Amino acid sequence: MERYKVILAYDGTHFQGFQRQAHGRPVVEARTVQSEIEAALRNLEWRGKAVLTAGRTDTGVHASGQVIAFDLEWRHSLADLQRAFNAHLPSDVAVRAVGLAPANFHPRYAAASRSYQYRLFCDPARHPLVERYAWRIWPAVDLERMQLAASYLVGRHDFSAFGTPLRANGSTIRTIYQAGWISDGKVLEFTICGNAFLYHMVRRLVFIQVEIGQGRLEPDMILRYLAEGRKLPQQGLAPAQGLTLVKVSFKDHFGEPSADHDFGETDCAENIHTESK
Amino acid sequence: MERYKVILAYDGTHFQGFQRQAHGRPVVEARTVQSEIEAALRNLEWRGKAVLTAGRTDTGVHASGQVIAFDLEWRHSLADLQRAFNAHLPSDVAVRAVGLAPANFHPRYAAASRSYQYRLFCDPARHPLVERYAWRIWPAVDLERMQLAASYLVGRHDFSAFGTPLRANGSTIRTIYQAGWISDGKVLEFTICGNAFLYHMVRRLVFIQVEIGQGRLEPDMILRYLAEGRKLPQQGLAPAQGLTLVKVSFKDHFGEPSADHDFGETDCAENIHTESK
Repeated sequence: MERYKVILAYDGTHFQGFQRQAHGRPVVEARTVQSEIEAALRNLEWRGKAVLTAGRTDTGVHASGQVIAFDLEWRHSLADLQRAFNAHLPSDVAVRAVGLAPANFHPRYAAASRSYQYRLFCDPARHPLVERYAWRIWPAVDLERMQLAASYLVGRHDFSAFGTPLRANGSTIRTIYQAGWISDGKVLEFTICGNAFLYHMVRRLVFIQVEIGQGRLEPDMILRYLAEGRKLPQQGLAPAQGLTLVKVSFKDHFGEPSADHDFGETDCAENIHTESK
Repeated sequence: MERYKVILAYDGTHFQGFQRQAHGRPVVEARTVQSEIEAALRNLEWRGKAVLTAGRTDTGVHASGQVIAFDLEWRHSLADLQRAFNAHLPSDVAVRAVGLAPANFHPRYAAASRSYQYRLFCDPARHPLVERYAWRIWPAVDLERMQLAASYLVGRHDFSAFGTPLRANGSTIRTIYQAGWISDGKVLEFTICGNAFLYHMVRRLVFIQVEIGQGRLEPDMILRYLAEGRKLPQQGLAPAQGLTLVKVSFKDHFGEPSADHDFGETDCAENIHTESK
């Protein structure tokens, strides 16, 4: 029996989030990434109760770099495991890489940082080929105001204005290593890398930056929200389909990939090393 | 009553192509882009029999720049027409721009060129966020061999080896103004612009170029196929989901757009002007 670490990609459109809904017994079970993953693993003689994950994603949120781990008896190669696993998964979820991990590896506790991307599409009219993975907004935004707002997010702050911790009374302090926007014509992409994120935090940060970019709020409102937390009126939530979990980075190098997929450190993770000194 | 010219975008995944299936009366009518468009127009008091189109697309093929035309009594602005039209369309098809056109404008006969893009994803493992709009291939291809193959396509040739004309005994001579590949990591994008295309022509051209890129055929096989036509064994067909109709360009400027969408000429169309002198 070995512990395996796996990088997953999924299109969140038709999933009710990552996590299997374990409470009670609903008449029709929700379709989640976890339930599809576990059903596929059972075809490979997996006997576990639940896979371990680096973090949940909400209904409609996508992933290109989600990480899970599980124990499995497997006599063939890692490449064979990847192929067999993929053969049992539906078309909207796929195993991008497989590696061996130490027996005590848990992706949530071993994770040093998570990176998310959020895509905006600035256009007055709908576009079916873009909006599956982006939030369409109009009027256009002022990118410089949004870059300034994003720069205020970097560092160790109380993000209680932008989300709730997963555990009741948990800390709302998080460290952001990188945050910024890039523009490709009408598509704007926000990338944020932090040690961890509160529930709904990235989508709330995107929403307030769109308010700033469209001129309804000033960039330094970010500073006020970070300083005053829940005392200020709560802002809205950007829709799920623009958000993708792109990468989970780990403190050490756990396991060798089966393919040429990058299991390694990011620029963001280099900042972590500085941070944790 | 005015004639309107409209640019459409659609995600072809859940359409059985563009054209309404008019022959006979099937028990369950196929879902096509044309039938959705015409149903939406009837909500705007359109009384026509069929919209005019620049060209059909096959089952599963996408479009960001399909062009249609129709006659309509409309008392409000072009922007209002676009909004009302979009409000009656399903989420996988959208009106990107609306303009007025001369009363005799027909997008098929007025079109000077069409541009298509085909996306390849070079990777050994599935990726749900990419493969909705790309064909995944493995092993990786040699881009230089494919660029050389693409360069042979430019010019006026008999493409009978790569498709059939829409009318029986129609000409198989077509003129290609531009053809080439660009690479963005694992995603390769083929763009081709020509005066018109045979049935399945772009997908057959992509397939043979992948054969060339993966080393099973030599680049100059394109020259032999152009010279010898149907005397050589027919090659395969790249799958529909990688293909997008991106632009239809017209000989003259027909109609003003309702939005900032580009109704104008492309670099490709400039080559047409040279060609038609």
